[in-house]
Amino acid sequence: MTYDNFPLIDHHCHGAVKKPVDTDSFARLMSESFRPAPEGTDPFLKPLGLAVRKHCAPLLDVDPLAPMSAYLEKRDAVGPEEVNRRFLKAANVTSFLVDTGHCTDELLSPAEIESLSGVPSFEVVRIEAVMETVAGQASSAADFRQKFEALLFERCKNAVGLKSVVAYRCTFAIDQTRPSQSDVDAAFDVWRSQTPEGKSFRVEDPILVRYGLWVGADLARPRRLPIQLHVGIGDPDVYMHACDPTHFTDFLRDMEAWEIPITLLHNYPFVREAAWLSEIFQNVYYDVGVILHFTGASAQRQMDEALELAPFSKHMFSSDAFGLPEFHYLGALFFRRTLAHRLESWVRDGACTINDAEQIAKAISADNARRIYQLEV
Amino acid sequence: MTYDNFPLIDHHCHGAVKKPVDTDSFARLMSESFRPAPEGTDPFLKPLGLAVRKHCAPLLDVDPLAPMSAYLEKRDAVGPEEVNRRFLKAANVTSFLVDTGHCTDELLSPAEIESLSGVPSFEVVRIEAVMETVAGQASSAADFRQKFEALLFERCKNAVGLKSVVAYRCTFAIDQTRPSQSDVDAAFDVWRSQTPEGKSFRVEDPILVRYGLWVGADLARPRRLPIQLHVGIGDPDVYMHACDPTHFTDFLRDMEAWEIPITLLHNYPFVREAAWLSEIFQNVYYDVGVILHFTGASAQRQMDEALELAPFSKHMFSSDAFGLPEFHYLGALFFRRTLAHRLESWVRDGACTINDAEQIAKAISADNARRIYQLEV
Amino acid sequence: MTYDNFPLIDHHCHGAVKKPVDTDSFARLMSESFRPAPEGTDPFLKPLGLAVRKHCAPLLDVDPLAPMSAYLEKRDAVGPEEVNRRFLKAANVTSFLVDTGHCTDELLSPAEIESLSGVPSFEVVRIEAVMETVAGQASSAADFRQKFEALLFERCKNAVGLKSVVAYRCTFAIDQTRPSQSDVDAAFDVWRSQTPEGKSFRVEDPILVRYGLWVGADLARPRRLPIQLHVGIGDPDVYMHACDPTHFTDFLRDMEAWEIPITLLHNYPFVREAAWLSEIFQNVYYDVGVILHFTGASAQRQMDEALELAPFSKHMFSSDAFGLPEFHYLGALFFRRTLAHRLESWVRDGACTINDAEQIAKAISADNARRIYQLEV
Repeated sequence: MTYDNFPLIDHHCHGAVKKPVDTDSFARLMSESFRPAPEGTDPFLKPLGLAVRKHCAPLLDVDPLAPMSAYLEKRDAVGPEEVNRRFLKAANVTSFLVDTGHCTDELLSPAEIESLSGVPSFEVVRIEAVMETVAGQASSAADFRQKFEALLFERCKNAVGLKSVVAYRCTFAIDQTRPSQSDVDAAFDVWRSQTPEGKSFRVEDPILVRYGLWVGADLARPRRLPIQLHVGIGDPDVYMHACDPTHFTDFLRDMEAWEIPITLLHNYPFVREAAWLSEIFQNVYYDVGVILHFTGASAQRQMDEALELAPFSKHMFSSDAFGLPEFHYLGALFFRRTLAHRLESWVRDGACTINDAEQIAKAISADNARRIYQLEV
Repeated sequence: MTYDNFPLIDHHCHGAVKKPVDTDSFARLMSESFRPAPEGTDPFLKPLGLAVRKHCAPLLDVDPLAPMSAYLEKRDAVGPEEVNRRFLKAANVTSFLVDTGHCTDELLSPAEIESLSGVPSFEVVRIEAVMETVAGQASSAADFRQKFEALLFERCKNAVGLKSVVAYRCTFAIDQTRPSQSDVDAAFDVWRSQTPEGKSFRVEDPILVRYGLWVGADLARPRRLPIQLHVGIGDPDVYMHACDPTHFTDFLRDMEAWEIPITLLHNYPFVREAAWLSEIFQNVYYDVGVILHFTGASAQRQMDEALELAPFSKHMFSSDAFGLPEFHYLGALFFRRTLAHRLESWVRDGACTINDAEQIAKAISADNARRIYQLEV
Repeated sequence: MTYDNFPLIDHHCHGAVKKPVDTDSFARLMSESFRPAPEGTDPFLKPLGLAVRKHCAPLLDVDPLAPMSAYLEKRDAVGPEEVNRRFLKAANVTSFLVDTGHCTDELLSPAEIESLSGVPSFEVVRIEAVMETVAGQASSAADFRQKFEALLFERCKNAVGLKSVVAYRCTFAIDQTRPSQSDVDAAFDVWRSQTPEGKSFRVEDPILVRYGLWVGADLARPRRLPIQLHVGIGDPDVYMHACDPTHFTDFLRDMEAWEIPITLLHNYPFVREAAWLSEIFQNVYYDVGVILHFTGASAQRQMDEALELAPFSKHMFSSDAFGLPEFHYLGALFFRRTLAHRLESWVRDGACTINDAEQIAKAISADNARRIYQLEV
């Protein structure tokens, strides 16, 4: 009996890069850093690098654990489209839910992912990206609000959820109430006046970010669309201590009253906090996306901590793959392996029945996501 | 040689419910949430549910891991008094120290626990509950102080310790000095004026909570009564990031100067912080109550983290059982198993002698509690 | 194939005590507490005590796990110089980098360590200690600045790095910019006026601590000297929640721009945070010094968490040994064993090749330290 042959829904990922990826770009996509590895060091000598060399190489007909140079050479020869196709298919998921709000032009769209992988893909709309799109086109604060709300509504028509990167932009340690219209308008005026002509807009003012969240909540409420929140691990933009999701308790509680599911993404190193929030709030869900493949050989510990406390109806799968289709594959691979390994040990030790283990595996792998995102896959 | 046959003192628990418990109530008592599990999900499909089905079922002559419905049916047939008796006895502890400050009327009193279990029970007085009792009867702030101090003194006469839920009521991230009398009086007047007629009083103002703590400390000092502090995991009332006990360092230090033992309860996900505080402060102690049975199949990791760093003279056992006598039993069971498992592995690996392991087991199981609570059991 | 025979550089330690150490002093040096263990308890019944009895005893021809009294008796008979020599040699490291800023007179100097151990020792200069040295001699704030900067420059001439204990003195949760000269001067005047005649100076004002850090950075920049930062575990001086190194993100980022390596020391219980910072900032490095021998039988978990995420080019070895040469030995011993154990399991499971494991072992054991401290050992 194995637990790794269940349908799997990747409830949070990004597209893979469409163009060829050279060694430097590959190294950059293997890191959350804005800078290259220090001089004299190997950027691939890290757990994620070992995982790629071990598990991805065979899909390119390269020997497992061959040097990264051999891997990248072969990857180049195979070409980006076939590489993307191969890994997206190998992930063997039922469905991809794709965050389209970051580096949209360079990455595969949900439709392209669908076409390459052969399975349905759905869009998750990033609130801040929509706001940044309209900011430069608005003739006034009122026009900004009108345009933002209209575009977000439009974009969500075919989306299965929304996403916010509030933690990146202003941390969770902020006032979480809906800002007043006049505060939003004043904040917009400052934002626009401080963004140099020709520069793209980046929303960081907590007032505007909160405004976006609450407009998103208004939209999500009647349809019970989930709102995804980035938590924890990320790039140097983040003040990690203030990305503990328990700083966002007030907002979670407000969304509970509105019956809007909130999914806490990644959560490292706050997995226990996220699982606890999922235990106490009816509407809160969590995953350990990104960290399973980033930790590779240590992925079991991440899964184990995620399985400690919370109801199994609250835990979900995401790869959080970005840029490299290897990550769509590795995310699914490590998820299946570590979940199966732990459930098998529980059955062996008599901690649960085979039937329990199957139910748990199904719930975490797909049922929970299918239920809250209202998917028909 | 086993390490699980030593006397065990449960230094922090609550009573079990006296009336019959229906399925919904049972589910509610199995969770820290204020709301039921999401529609379409099984409230028992969680680690704690598996633990009950696995370990508690045999005590009701139900097959291990039988469906929860079968368990609850049989539980109902056996009846609450016998269920309470059976699990309290099966916990096989030497003594229960009972926090009587929450849901007092519905739960077994220390005397009733003693009668059902056949072992001595002692009372731990919850400071905030005593304060809330007198708040409505006071004719003035001065009268409030007089009544509170008199009642707390009275209640502590036969108690073995005090408890505070300061973390719940206003977090640990507060000023920790003794408030002035005039500040207390002003805070009381606000409190009373803001509590609607007929509503029960709930103390949340940090000034009043601190006042209670310091009056408790005055009382505890001459008798060296321990003060228990709730830390970490709890219900949605808590702002978890601010329940890190290292936020309460100033108070711990003040109590060290007064030679008052402070016991940090539960501590998840701050077990390492609590153990470190117990290493550096002579008067600080900790347990991993509640989390062992809440994590069930993952309990070993909780025990292991608790055993990492601190002197074995500072670690203690509590079940933090509330409402369901299954938890008194499971708390003791998982404690014994996980402690024995780790000590056996240490002996096997030569990390300590059998004699060391016995001393460690005795210290954590009972000696530390017996010493600081000055018990004659 | 073993991974524990590689050159090892202890990039952060202190000297061992030169005089004989009686039982009380030994107990004190085995703890981070300012006070003795509670009455009626054994100060050695802790993981660190078991580790000493198990692993250090044979070097004094005492049976492993013999009672601590037997160990201490023999230790006394052998005498401090020979004890120091034996354990420093047994550590079998290539080089010691010694923080000379705490209890300087009682401890072995780098030269004495070199002489006893037979391997080169280098000095790391503690910024705050230098500042405290000159504070009493300055005739004015301007003179203080001149004297401090001159002495720090002088002291660094032959040093391989600097160290700051900013986390101890004012936590990481502070403004991290360079303070203005007038703010420094005003802070110095307050400091001096508040330090009683004849009392030694202790710098705690964040303005002065930041001033020291930035002067240190000025000095470090042209030579790319690393700056070490104490993080996490320490004595009761610390407010642990505010010693999370992610509170110091702004300073880390500034030092990245200046290309100054920052080494985060100890990091317990923030190892994951430190490893993540090392992933995202080109200039950040980390170790799990002190905690490996402090946790002893649980050291593997500490190493495992340190190996989860970060590039292997960012992880380093330190013992953080202070006072007892047993810790220089135990630090190296637990580091070697736990690293070798994990790498062997990775090779066995096919997670990396033998060659990868050797490269990883070499990088963490010595190459990283050799590179950033620019050592010729």
